[in-house]
This record gives sequence, C-alpha cells and structure tokens, in this order.
Amino acid sequence: MPSPTSHTQNDGRSRLDAATAAVRLGVRRSLESCSADAAVLACVSGGADSMALAAALAFEAKARSIRVHSITVDHGLQPGSGTVAERTAQTLATWGIEAHIEQVTVTDAGGPEAAARNARYRAIDAVADRTGVELVMLGHTLDDQAESVLLGLARGSGAGSLKAMAPLNGRYARPLLGVRRKQTRDSCMARGIEVWDDPQNDDDAFARVRARRIVLPVFEKELGPGIAEALARTAEQSREDEDAFEQMIEEFIEEVCEPAEAGIAVEVSALAHNPAALRNRLIRYVAQAEFGASLSRTHTLAIAALVTDWRGQGPINVPGISVSRRGDRIVFTAAEKA
Amino acid sequence: MPSPTSHTQNDGRSRLDAATAAVRLGVRRSLESCSADAAVLACVSGGADSMALAAALAFEAKARSIRVHSITVDHGLQPGSGTVAERTAQTLATWGIEAHIEQVTVTDAGGPEAAARNARYRAIDAVADRTGVELVMLGHTLDDQAESVLLGLARGSGAGSLKAMAPLNGRYARPLLGVRRKQTRDSCMARGIEVWDDPQNDDDAFARVRARRIVLPVFEKELGPGIAEALARTAEQSREDEDAFEQMIEEFIEEVCEPAEAGIAVEVSALAHNPAALRNRLIRYVAQAEFGASLSRTHTLAIAALVTDWRGQGPINVPGISVSRRGDRIVFTAAEKA
Repeated sequence: MPSPTSHTQNDGRSRLDAATAAVRLGVRRSLESCSADAAVLACVSGGADSMALAAALAFEAKARSIRVHSITVDHGLQPGSGTVAERTAQTLATWGIEAHIEQVTVTDAGGPEAAARNARYRAIDAVADRTGVELVMLGHTLDDQAESVLLGLARGSGAGSLKAMAPLNGRYARPLLGVRRKQTRDSCMARGIEVWDDPQNDDDAFARVRARRIVLPVFEKELGPGIAEALARTAEQSREDEDAFEQMIEEFIEEVCEPAEAGIAVEVSALAHNPAALRNRLIRYVAQAEFGASLSRTHTLAIAALVTDWRGQGPINVPGISVSRRGDRIVFTAAEKA
Repeated sequence: MPSPTSHTQNDGRSRLDAATAAVRLGVRRSLESCSADAAVLACVSGGADSMALAAALAFEAKARSIRVHSITVDHGLQPGSGTVAERTAQTLATWGIEAHIEQVTVTDAGGPEAAARNARYRAIDAVADRTGVELVMLGHTLDDQAESVLLGLARGSGAGSLKAMAPLNGRYARPLLGVRRKQTRDSCMARGIEVWDDPQNDDDAFARVRARRIVLPVFEKELGPGIAEALARTAEQSREDEDAFEQMIEEFIEEVCEPAEAGIAVEVSALAHNPAALRNRLIRYVAQAEFGASLSRTHTLAIAALVTDWRGQGPINVPGISVSRRGDRIVFTAAEKA
C-alpha cells in the first residue's frame, strides 16, 4: 500500500498522466446523471481496474460534494482474502471513501463463477440499499467487454448475447467500458497506488480467462490491430439494436396477446406482418415472460414456421411449452408433465 | 477426374451418404423458389465445395426439368489454371451440365482478393445474363460464413458487418450456408468426385485464410465446441436484425427527409423520437445514399449528438459532408473542397 508520501492521488501539483485522465473522464461522464449531494458506491476488489475507478471517483466526487462509499467483498475462497480486503479498505479510507467490507459465503450452485458472482451482487445490493446510494459503480473495462463479446459469440445467440455488459443498468454503472485495462494499471502505477492481482484472473479453468489470455491475443495478431476496440463497438451497437427491438415489443405486446386457457395467445397477423427479427423476439419474449423458458433459435424458428410456413403441422413442443396454431391465433400453453 | 465406372453421382443404386444428403437438402430448398423449367447457373471453381454443389444440383435439377449451367472462371493467376478449368468443365459436362469457362483479367485494384472477386463476379453476371438463368448458385459453406463473421468482427461495425453473406441476394443463392465444408469434401469423396485444392486457400497472406486456419481453431479449442455453428447463427440473426431496420428506414425515410440547398435535411424530431439503433442507421443511410459516404461510428455519433446532446455546437465535418443543426432540421451538405 502506498506510503503517505507516495500517495499523490488527489494532489493537484502532480502532473496528470493520460491514463488517469481517461479513467477520470469515464467517471465524470457517469456522474453527470447524479443529483447534487448524491452518494455513490464503488465496488472495489483491490485490483487495478477497481482501484483506478475508486481513486478517480474520490477525486471527481470532491468537486461535486458527492459522498463515496466502497464495498470490498471477501468471498473467503482464497487464503488471505480477508487481509486483501482490509488493506484495500484502508487505502480507500485514506482517499476519503467510506469503505465497507462484506464477507459472503459462496455456495457452489451453477458453477463457481456464477456462485461467486451471485453472492457478490447480493452483498453489493445490500450495502447499496443500506447506504442509499444513487449509483453503484463497477470497474469493468473495455477489455472485459471484449471478452464478454467473445463469450457471447461462443453461445451464438445474436445481438442478445453480443450486447455484453450495460454501461448503465438501473443503478449499476460501468464508467470504464471505454477505458483499456492497461490504462487502469498505468493510472495506478502513475499515482503510486498498490494493487492486488487476483490469482483467479490467471486461472485457465475459467472460460473468461481463456478468452483473455489465449483467444483475444491470437485474434489481435492475425486479424488486428484494434480487435478489443472492434469487439467493444460491436457490443455497443448490439445493445442499441436489442434496446430498439425491446422497445418495439413493449409498444405492441399488449395489443397482440390475450390470455388463453392455461396460457397465452398471439395473433397470427401480428407475427406475420412483422420482420423476422421482431417475430422471433416476440416468440422468445412470450416464452420467457409467461413460462420462464429461454428458447433456442431452432425452437424459435419451429414456432415461427407455424406462421411463415403453415402446412397444418401439429403442436410444437419445446421444453415446458406446447405451441399450436388455432385459427388466427398461435396458442402457447404449459406442456403437460411427462 | 473420376473414371466413368467410379462416377456414381446420379446412380440411384448407390447408398446415399449423409454428407451428400445434407448438400442435396440445401440445394433442394434453394430450388423451391424456382419456376418449373427454369435454368440455374452454378459457380464452380473445381474445389470440394462447388463440386459437391454442382453434383447435388445436377441430381436435384433432373427431377424438376431444370437446366443447369456452370461457370468456371479462369483467373489466369496460377500456372495450369486453364487445365484445372478444362478438367472441371469436363467433369461437369458428364453430369449433364452445360459447362462454361470464362477467362478473366485481374487488375490489382483494391487488393488482390477484391480484384479477383470483382473480375469473377463480372464474368458470372455476364454468363448469367447470356444464359437467362433464374438463380446463380455459390458454394459458400457454413465455415465460410463463420470466417466472414470473424472478419466482420475485426471491423467492428455491428450487425451490418456480422450479417456476413446472404443466403439469397437477388438472383445469387448460397444453398450450402448450413452445410459444413467437411461435408462437401466427404460428399465428393463418397461419390468419387475428384476435387482441386486451390493453393490460395492455404496462403496465410489472406486474412480469410488466417481466420480459417489460425483464429477459428483456437476459438473452437478454448471456447468451443460449436464455434463455427455459433458464428453462423450470429450471422443469421444479425441479417434478420439488419433487414428489419432497413425495412423500417425504407418505410419512413421519405416522410422525414426533404431536399435542402446542396444537400438534404432530416427532421430533428424523427431522429429524436426513434431509438438509437434507428437514429444512427438513418444518419448512415443519408450519408451513404446522398453522398456515397460510409460513416464511422464515431462520426455517426457526433452527428447524432446534434440531436441527442444539442448544446449549440457548430457543424460536424466528416469526410465529404458537413452536417449542421438549423432549427428543427439537421442539414447534410456536400463539404467544400479544401
């Protein structure tokens, strides 16, 4: 951790390095929507991304009388995790941040990554509620976003998975999605901020780590330069596209659906007269909203064919749902248990 | 080339292998839109993809009284290219195909790949016009599509580049976009069809070859299985999305634009009240249609900010175009030459 003399964080006399300027710009833009005298919570693991975020937030908040809280989650999964959390919180406190440490218990449901993430977000939400913050800031960078796009591509479900992480989702903000990971590290280095390197970030057992350490570098070398930025642009545009379709569906879903016995009915004409992109999303939307089912593309297209390629075919059975055409309506009903 | 005895192509007695069945299914679906007694042109390099396509087309066409032409383009870029074209045409003729060979001259404008492609498509169009075919079939496979998505990702311009190759574009059809490259090779092998391996397919100087030989295998190994299929699904969904947005823009472009002095004006309200995905595409559409300019995302967003973040800023100058806000209109004018 930096000694008081090496800590130049909020020291106007030190020359502002380019990396710190980039991090602060991201944070500043994110704060634009905040009320005066708001409180903001930064999620800080102690890694370079979140330390650079917290330092920039502490700096930018001062001019705006914004109170800054931080949360450092101790997952208790690695020896010494408590010490890392303590040291991180101590540094944050020296910047005027009200630092919280939350210990969580990770149960291994749905894989270790998902379990740790769920436990973390529960803790973050609890602290956000308790402190009454307007924004919860996460330190994800452009590189994290590029990795998310690669992982989304591997799933292959179009704009819905390529949109990756939201810059703003409810009170959750990601101010650094336009900042490279290296810039956060450079910023910490330039300001003498000590960072903690999570060994999990180098563990090839995780798909995200393989995307980062193996796939992206090969992609960059063979088809670059600028692959990470290109993937991040794809995320941005995919999110716009997905948002537009969601908005359109919200605008007409009520009109074209009606309750049916043990399910819901959609007008054939509504499905027929919309372009495939909307038709298929409408089908997926109904399955998700009414039955909590996430349809594969193959299943979605089989249901769409009741409209686009109607030859009197029988009900389409997908996990949990049975879909059939009855006159001018497509009827979704809960599948009978086998 | 196969001897007459090894040539089992249209021989009903031979057992139908799965690969050939897949190729034929693709071709059959593509022929569904054809009139009776139509003519179809297959583009055949002599490689496994196009030979499998031509063989399947010859087979499927017979039952439908469809006449089949083929075109083999001799680019004259490799020694012996004339012999390859001749041998290919001879094989095709034994299947009842009217085989054409076209010699083209490749001028190296816009890079060797683009130049060869342009020369090839000119020759294909000429033969298609001359023979009066309804469809021109290309042998691109699911693997080609996956490579195109990777190349589109490297450009990073969203659904517009991820949509990759169209299954049907005017008279051009790609019946094998759902078929793996290996299946075309297996099909040729199973039916004793000799194929020609283009040495350019192994030349790492081409980005597409690097995508195929280096990037995709790493992607598959680290984040697979099923990456090629996932990328092809992304292409399909991106094409649907892009088609939907294009249709929407066509529906309202006339209403919201009007001629302006030395350019065109778009209503601010039309840009403001549409979601970002449509707004940005509308801006790109106007730039492309009126000025032949292909806007980068950065330029598009700068123009959009005249609507979404209006602070009285001056004209936005992008290559060839100057865009300014005048009252309730955004005016695009040709930039003055420097």
